[in-house]
Amino acid sequence: MFNSIGNILKLTTFGESHGIAIGGILDGFPAGIKVDFDAIQKELNRRKPGQSSIVTQRKEPDTVVFLSGIFEGITTGASIGFHIKNINQKSKDYSHNTNIYRPSHADFTYDKKYGIRDYRGGGRSSARETANWVVAGALAKQLISHIEINAFTSSVGDVFVHKPYQDLDFSKTESNIVRCPDIETAEKMIQLINQVKKEGDTIGGTITCIAKNIPIGLGEPIFHKLHATLGKAMLSINAVKGFEFGSGFSGTKMKGSTHNDIFNTDGSTKSNLSGGIQGGISNGMDIYFRVAFKPVATIMQSQQTIDSQGNPTKIQGKGRHDPCVVPRAIPIVEALSALVLADFYLLHKTRQK
Amino acid sequence: MFNSIGNILKLTTFGESHGIAIGGILDGFPAGIKVDFDAIQKELNRRKPGQSSIVTQRKEPDTVVFLSGIFEGITTGASIGFHIKNINQKSKDYSHNTNIYRPSHADFTYDKKYGIRDYRGGGRSSARETANWVVAGALAKQLISHIEINAFTSSVGDVFVHKPYQDLDFSKTESNIVRCPDIETAEKMIQLINQVKKEGDTIGGTITCIAKNIPIGLGEPIFHKLHATLGKAMLSINAVKGFEFGSGFSGTKMKGSTHNDIFNTDGSTKSNLSGGIQGGISNGMDIYFRVAFKPVATIMQSQQTIDSQGNPTKIQGKGRHDPCVVPRAIPIVEALSALVLADFYLLHKTRQK
Amino acid sequence: MFNSIGNILKLTTFGESHGIAIGGILDGFPAGIKVDFDAIQKELNRRKPGQSSIVTQRKEPDTVVFLSGIFEGITTGASIGFHIKNINQKSKDYSHNTNIYRPSHADFTYDKKYGIRDYRGGGRSSARETANWVVAGALAKQLISHIEINAFTSSVGDVFVHKPYQDLDFSKTESNIVRCPDIETAEKMIQLINQVKKEGDTIGGTITCIAKNIPIGLGEPIFHKLHATLGKAMLSINAVKGFEFGSGFSGTKMKGSTHNDIFNTDGSTKSNLSGGIQGGISNGMDIYFRVAFKPVATIMQSQQTIDSQGNPTKIQGKGRHDPCVVPRAIPIVEALSALVLADFYLLHKTRQK
Amino acid sequence: MFNSIGNILKLTTFGESHGIAIGGILDGFPAGIKVDFDAIQKELNRRKPGQSSIVTQRKEPDTVVFLSGIFEGITTGASIGFHIKNINQKSKDYSHNTNIYRPSHADFTYDKKYGIRDYRGGGRSSARETANWVVAGALAKQLISHIEINAFTSSVGDVFVHKPYQDLDFSKTESNIVRCPDIETAEKMIQLINQVKKEGDTIGGTITCIAKNIPIGLGEPIFHKLHATLGKAMLSINAVKGFEFGSGFSGTKMKGSTHNDIFNTDGSTKSNLSGGIQGGISNGMDIYFRVAFKPVATIMQSQQTIDSQGNPTKIQGKGRHDPCVVPRAIPIVEALSALVLADFYLLHKTRQK
Repeated sequence: MFNSIGNILKLTTFGESHGIAIGGILDGFPAGIKVDFDAIQKELNRRKPGQSSIVTQRKEPDTVVFLSGIFEGITTGASIGFHIKNINQKSKDYSHNTNIYRPSHADFTYDKKYGIRDYRGGGRSSARETANWVVAGALAKQLISHIEINAFTSSVGDVFVHKPYQDLDFSKTESNIVRCPDIETAEKMIQLINQVKKEGDTIGGTITCIAKNIPIGLGEPIFHKLHATLGKAMLSINAVKGFEFGSGFSGTKMKGSTHNDIFNTDGSTKSNLSGGIQGGISNGMDIYFRVAFKPVATIMQSQQTIDSQGNPTKIQGKGRHDPCVVPRAIPIVEALSALVLADFYLLHKTRQK
Repeated sequence: MFNSIGNILKLTTFGESHGIAIGGILDGFPAGIKVDFDAIQKELNRRKPGQSSIVTQRKEPDTVVFLSGIFEGITTGASIGFHIKNINQKSKDYSHNTNIYRPSHADFTYDKKYGIRDYRGGGRSSARETANWVVAGALAKQLISHIEINAFTSSVGDVFVHKPYQDLDFSKTESNIVRCPDIETAEKMIQLINQVKKEGDTIGGTITCIAKNIPIGLGEPIFHKLHATLGKAMLSINAVKGFEFGSGFSGTKMKGSTHNDIFNTDGSTKSNLSGGIQGGISNGMDIYFRVAFKPVATIMQSQQTIDSQGNPTKIQGKGRHDPCVVPRAIPIVEALSALVLADFYLLHKTRQK
Repeated sequence: MFNSIGNILKLTTFGESHGIAIGGILDGFPAGIKVDFDAIQKELNRRKPGQSSIVTQRKEPDTVVFLSGIFEGITTGASIGFHIKNINQKSKDYSHNTNIYRPSHADFTYDKKYGIRDYRGGGRSSARETANWVVAGALAKQLISHIEINAFTSSVGDVFVHKPYQDLDFSKTESNIVRCPDIETAEKMIQLINQVKKEGDTIGGTITCIAKNIPIGLGEPIFHKLHATLGKAMLSINAVKGFEFGSGFSGTKMKGSTHNDIFNTDGSTKSNLSGGIQGGISNGMDIYFRVAFKPVATIMQSQQTIDSQGNPTKIQGKGRHDPCVVPRAIPIVEALSALVLADFYLLHKTRQK
Repeated sequence: MFNSIGNILKLTTFGESHGIAIGGILDGFPAGIKVDFDAIQKELNRRKPGQSSIVTQRKEPDTVVFLSGIFEGITTGASIGFHIKNINQKSKDYSHNTNIYRPSHADFTYDKKYGIRDYRGGGRSSARETANWVVAGALAKQLISHIEINAFTSSVGDVFVHKPYQDLDFSKTESNIVRCPDIETAEKMIQLINQVKKEGDTIGGTITCIAKNIPIGLGEPIFHKLHATLGKAMLSINAVKGFEFGSGFSGTKMKGSTHNDIFNTDGSTKSNLSGGIQGGISNGMDIYFRVAFKPVATIMQSQQTIDSQGNPTKIQGKGRHDPCVVPRAIPIVEALSALVLADFYLLHKTRQK
């Protein structure tokens, strides 16, 4: 029941990193939408391993096959089944780990929770799963094509984009391998990642996401507020440690007299510290939020750890992991944002007779 | 469908700040639990208005009446209905606002979403609703009485508790009106709130919450991770702008080699930057997280705003609002934490045959 | 989680027959509907005890109080809380039963499931709960006021209405105490019930329900078909043992060549053995179904039974029970039909972009 | 959201009769169960087309492939993805129907609901979907292996099994092609089906299902009663028109004094007109129910119908359809019963602390 996200538009997924395939079922997608398959594959390509020198060098083509719910290129209203084959499983990379709990991974907790562990590369806890989300999110984007969603790398380690997002040109996000539209900062980020990679280490970072052209009224009080649902989606991404929207944590230091967003006569607001959401409902201003990613747990250095019997042992990652997860997480953040917003868009249709 | 929280243990609520009553139904609470009614009322008293000089001076006794699901003091497994009367409605306080959108409140978004607005004190968007959560959370605490949950004020404006939580004595949290166990810092916080109050202004802050004695294995991959569900619950609280757990946003600046939590041979970890959760599942270490609250939007200063026709007008709060929402939000954070953890506790029973 | 019905429009209820009050929360009701409170109370009066000589003589006014979600007579989109006080609890009627399992009641199963039993008149398993459904159903009727729902008593024991429903005048349903629009048959039913009542016995019967003016397209394949959801709702009513729609069980004896509904050129069908639903989706023809009610388990005769320790004992009902549940169940069948149809009506809004 | 069944144990499905594959995701299946793959395939073989002279002669091997959630033959607690390829699509059989609404099929309603129709063999509305259910049900049977579920053909047209089920030997159900353990009656049923088939016609029938060794306490009041959930599941099967349990519709003619099930001192009952369920909760006695199937709509005779423009036309089925759906529906009824019971079995674990 918990491999699903969404209410009206609901994605349910399956798959382990080293199984035959991963995949999902997208239920509740409205009928009559012409599907742009290239756009979907393009999103998958943004997420896939091996695309640049600063990400994992694993090679996976990540080709999605749709099995149902689309007839002659048009959605039918039936559930959309899809899968992505795992063609490059290389289980042997993980064979030395069958019995070892990697620090700050999910090995220990899965084993204790279920009494069994699929030790091949993290199994169900692997970020490979996020390819499913990108497929569904790319479909969702086509449903709410009037909404524009842009995520970008806003920090790596202590290298931050200092410009306000309004001063950034999102058409440049894809122009560099770290996916930061501020080119100068992008270069510093890439330098830092390369440095960290050389050390056999990893580094964290943040992603900022902006959604524009949001209809007023998306979001459902009390326990399904728009920002809370976005937050839960983002916190579902592997390695995420925090979420803030609008003024976020820095808003806690402000006074009401400066924090309040004063209205213009057309209902828009002069400032937007609310982040486009008030009382859990979109107010038509830009929605923006920030997501915190910890450094990847798998490092290329020897670490002390234990095996499942509690015996001390050593572990060291083998060379195909991401030194920084943030660049490849950009399309994931966008995909989940699109899924959440599309779900609220459909739901909002039911709120007035 | 969205006035509910939880899966197995599900709270559904109703009520506006100025209606006859607020209340809720707690469904899925196991049978056979002896209810400590005093403990419930005590939690309500921690939340209620008028309890100290630094919170709103409204007087509401907030007495809960249980209507079902408890027989001779024991839960029966039937849904637990309860209500809290609104005895001090004072609608006239709000009569001047019937047509005015208060800045950074939910007036505008509710009106646009629903085409109708209950202008009496925020209606459904009022934080009065949180009294319902405290009732349900107090019951949940009695279900998972082995788990210890402690929230406290960790910052007000730029006054922060700098000690690690392990050095704090939570028995002192209730010893001061700002609910900060670090007494010296508490005094500075109170000073700051008093200063802000004098200015007719408001101030934000953060709450840190720690849950101890967590069983290993709580949390459900993929889309119902323990921290993501805690995050969504916290983001449902009025005025919350952010959530982080474990290393949170500061973890983004760290390297994997220092961020990873190295195991002890008993499966515990030497550090706990994971915040007690790995892969969405509790690992038995302390769970801790931090919640960001913006400054309350209602201030005692005159502000420019508009009415529902878009005409510019002025608005000024009348004297019964909180200068800082954080002290009264402590029991709310704890209550939602208890609800979430109790739900996962029940759910975990279904994971192995 | 299971005291709820519906998806978009969701009713959650609480209450025991002898508690302080019963009540519910209706969530997802659209904003902007003017509420006809008299119509709601009228439905409650159709269900209430003591209204005629052939139903229980208990006196309960069953006055509903709305606590939220309606402002100045208009729904606001907020969850609608309501309760109905139990003013005539008379617990003493049941005091002799505290330890005894009544045959074919839920006493035994509740006690075994929960390890505790509210022995006062059935507790949560009492049909008193259905008053909550009537309130919510009466609201739902106002949401889908274009749909006409008529239930009637189609059999009591072996006295059946033999006319097709098309030949009945539903304006006569309320003209007699058994709620059968075929007056001649109604008299025979009343005679039978009176006879059974004199014997201290009870008798079963069936209700037929017809919904007209159904929009084409309500119903959701695969696991939320319109008839399946109606069926589940009906099977939730106390004492119900069966559900059939369209040709029902008698359709099992037919051949396809006579069972198929041949189309008219306007898309309507010449016959309607499908009962207005094909593939789980309404086709615009009348929806009709039949619900089977067993005889009430509480009889005014002495019966052998056991107590909770397994000791044999005797039990005999005291004089305030229904000799036949069917007449009072008419508004219940209509209420649940309205709730189900209104939910599908809202849901259908999300099926096309 | 509605291609799913279950709460804790949840099956979500996809697939059209003439797409690449059908499949599903079974979520919430506990970890640690050794999977008997042969038993699953055996159930699929009972459902598959072409297995005898009285069912459709289509040839489909219906081989299931599991893609996740099972590691080294043991369930891991991860969602179980599976698919079944459609190897024998023969779309050309349907090419003449692209524009025609078949009487008493779902063509018209799907087209009107979604504004688009996958005309290849019914698309999503095809009973091919039920192969997915059989896979999931076969897994569920392995989870609740202590419960014994037996369905059989209890009538075809007006040929009925007259013996009480207690007198039947279920080991004989598979001994004949109509799946009726009463051999003499089975022969008459086969004769009738052959006769109907020769006429190019179809015939309805009923299935009775018995579940033994049910733990006491399965079922959730109020809106998730065991029988109501079984009823909804059965009503989800293609061609089903009715459901009754225990005394069912014939119970409506009985008096309480004869209908009541009197207790033995061990809590079992002398009779079992309740059908093993009281107040929506299992009482430990056999659960039994009956499901009504209409005659298959596709007949080998010419029928008047319309096309999507409302033009009158003729249609005639081509030779690969079932003259009676009941024999192949036996494993489907069992599968859904197992899914429902397994879900309640897991859920019941949460009802007491």
